[in-house]
Amino acid sequence: MLSVSNDTICALSTANGMGAIAVIRVSGKEALTITSAIFSKDLTQKDSHTAHFGIIKDAQGLPIDEVLVTVLQEGKSFTGENTTEIACHGSVFIQQEILRLLLDNGCRMAEPGEFTMRAFFNGKLDLSQAEAIADLIAADSKKVHQIALNQLRGGYSDNIGNLKQRLMDFASLIELELDFSEEDVEFASRTELHALVEELAKKLTDLKHSFAYGNALKNGINTVIAGRPNAGKSTLLNALLNEERAIVSDIAGTTRDTIEEQLTIDGVNFRFIDTAGIREASDEIERIGVERTFKEVNKSNILLYVYDASALTPEEVNSDIQKLEREGLDILLIANKVDQLPEGAVLPSTDLKYTTVPISAKQQEGLDALRQALSSSVNALGSESDTIVVNARHYAAFSKALEDIRKVDHGLAAQIPGDLLAMDIRSAIRNLSSITGEITTDDLLGNIFANFCIGK
Amino acid sequence: MLSVSNDTICALSTANGMGAIAVIRVSGKEALTITSAIFSKDLTQKDSHTAHFGIIKDAQGLPIDEVLVTVLQEGKSFTGENTTEIACHGSVFIQQEILRLLLDNGCRMAEPGEFTMRAFFNGKLDLSQAEAIADLIAADSKKVHQIALNQLRGGYSDNIGNLKQRLMDFASLIELELDFSEEDVEFASRTELHALVEELAKKLTDLKHSFAYGNALKNGINTVIAGRPNAGKSTLLNALLNEERAIVSDIAGTTRDTIEEQLTIDGVNFRFIDTAGIREASDEIERIGVERTFKEVNKSNILLYVYDASALTPEEVNSDIQKLEREGLDILLIANKVDQLPEGAVLPSTDLKYTTVPISAKQQEGLDALRQALSSSVNALGSESDTIVVNARHYAAFSKALEDIRKVDHGLAAQIPGDLLAMDIRSAIRNLSSITGEITTDDLLGNIFANFCIGK
Repeated sequence: MLSVSNDTICALSTANGMGAIAVIRVSGKEALTITSAIFSKDLTQKDSHTAHFGIIKDAQGLPIDEVLVTVLQEGKSFTGENTTEIACHGSVFIQQEILRLLLDNGCRMAEPGEFTMRAFFNGKLDLSQAEAIADLIAADSKKVHQIALNQLRGGYSDNIGNLKQRLMDFASLIELELDFSEEDVEFASRTELHALVEELAKKLTDLKHSFAYGNALKNGINTVIAGRPNAGKSTLLNALLNEERAIVSDIAGTTRDTIEEQLTIDGVNFRFIDTAGIREASDEIERIGVERTFKEVNKSNILLYVYDASALTPEEVNSDIQKLEREGLDILLIANKVDQLPEGAVLPSTDLKYTTVPISAKQQEGLDALRQALSSSVNALGSESDTIVVNARHYAAFSKALEDIRKVDHGLAAQIPGDLLAMDIRSAIRNLSSITGEITTDDLLGNIFANFCIGK
Repeated sequence: MLSVSNDTICALSTANGMGAIAVIRVSGKEALTITSAIFSKDLTQKDSHTAHFGIIKDAQGLPIDEVLVTVLQEGKSFTGENTTEIACHGSVFIQQEILRLLLDNGCRMAEPGEFTMRAFFNGKLDLSQAEAIADLIAADSKKVHQIALNQLRGGYSDNIGNLKQRLMDFASLIELELDFSEEDVEFASRTELHALVEELAKKLTDLKHSFAYGNALKNGINTVIAGRPNAGKSTLLNALLNEERAIVSDIAGTTRDTIEEQLTIDGVNFRFIDTAGIREASDEIERIGVERTFKEVNKSNILLYVYDASALTPEEVNSDIQKLEREGLDILLIANKVDQLPEGAVLPSTDLKYTTVPISAKQQEGLDALRQALSSSVNALGSESDTIVVNARHYAAFSKALEDIRKVDHGLAAQIPGDLLAMDIRSAIRNLSSITGEITTDDLLGNIFANFCIGK
């Protein structure tokens, strides 16, 4: 079993390269002693959370830099260990010299994620919180950032902590029954267990479903723009991009025939995919284009169906939509070219079940409403659960726990013996515990922390 | 006149990009109030040099990040102003969000170097020390780093502070004489003034000369390798590079015919330039090559003259050297191929005035001695002055002050009237004061701080 080492580690914690300042972090039993050895002041008796200005000196007493060292005592630091944070001038040379001096005085270079791993081993964070730190640092949009921060702050404890505890109580009671198996007693109320299992199944199903949303948020919401030729699809994309020029970035399309652009709306990253117009294919090349459009639709979370409101009838719109509908695909009807409708005209009322947004892509009208509709569409995707699962490992563990719980449910219905019931309950507990790291393996930990940056 | 603003500034102080952590610095009258406005704790009453863990929240109270804020009170910070340093998780998103919140709450984005400029205006640093910070951050070798750090710590005060003060006393006395001009008094002893002027001239000359060394250190010591064809010049370069592989970097040569490589020896950057072999040119192309070699020699600080010790006579070496000697060029004679000398042979004694280093480039023998000779050569360049001038602005000011001082010297010899003497003395004082920034202009300050990075 991996365990926290007794040695003292150090690393550059700020971004690589030259800056005005850089911060080197030292953590471990000897962090204060080692830092004092290269510093002009003795830090070993200093209060936690105090900062000290002084000079880093090399073995010959030659000054290396004027720095500000913050002391964080054991139990009060991020890692839970004695920690110093050395804020030095940000030249690469100084960074290297100070690290070299720390190594010379008994530190070891930290592995990627080792500070966080120590925080985990010292009980400052559970495993899902540790993973949230990597997500937090990588987050590039507000929503994903918020999910990571929530996870860091609370983990899954609000969601499953209490339920898991109750499950453990049941497991103990059922196992106790086994000791009295000849007497046919029932310590664990099957009715109460059934209620708990129902509650857990509901919770786990919500968490499991939230992954589709969380994953889409993390990677960007796939939003396909489709419609008949000349409906104004590309004009719409350009209009959206134009208005948000500052945060537009090009992404190389996977095929030459679809254009992909990224755009942040209301703190959510959208990946817009413009497609070839849909119509009865008159030749082979066009047929391939249309096929690709359907492929993109299949991969998407949201479909913007764009049509010329001055030309298409509700029936024609309806017929197109029927070809595009998919399970799990949210559709917005974009009635384009409303500026070409006669004065005072109203959009024909439709009995379609989707939201219609009237716009003029060319005149840049209705775009705010469209953006709002997109935001609502995303929010609707994720509304089932307060907690959003973004991590594939957690998703897998929740899915497995849900299977176990369903087995318990079936077992209860079939009145299977207590020992079999207990086995499934224990398996569910194991799967839930793997998320927070109460049960874990070296391989798993190695994998998780290897994906961290050094210095964290 | 530029002066320090009353507003509060903020900037990312660590290197750009993603890291484990990032530090945002806030400085100004309202630094504590503004930081408190977005932080979960009130920092306004906290002691200086204390660190506080808490949560940055946006206007809606939504948490943005868990951070560690260090409080530095007015008078005790780098800038001399109230300062907070916010150590946040190092995602670009978080950096931007926190900066945005600070701006929303009354901060202004800092201009490049503005923190240092405020330190200067608040009397925490003189101008030459402020400039040393930029040099310190840019320093990429130990020697240049040490010079910048010494300058940051002491400025030129040890060298010229006292002398300048004595010069000012003389100027006052001489000006006092002018008030009593009819009485032909002499408050200022001309003998003492002469002694002071001599002392200053010596000091300024040393400082001025040190610039050649300082500048070479800063940009790398140009070291040209020359010699007859087949003397082993390229083998020598490769041998040196090979042994120091870790710190070798390629630099695009200015001409196709010379190879340039950079190498750090004993904390000093050397730029080695390998040249075409020197011999009587037999055709036009070769003539050009040889011409280029001489051009490189003219630009260099050190010449490594490489010769085949098993083939050349002292007379031939001597004849080559006579063609290569230049004022200010240090020459090392590299007696190569000593492994091909007969067993027990000694190098022929020469009456040449330069150090001879026997090596075998091919066998990698004698390279340590060569590196030592190179280091000595560099140290000899800079041994005249304790303080090394690396800044062209300081060099120019010292040069002008020296001219003024020489005028005073001549004036004393010619017994010119006190008012003329005082004029030259005042000019010298002005030039010396411009270095430390006691006398300065907006343009000058603008120029100096514009070259800083933002956040410093």
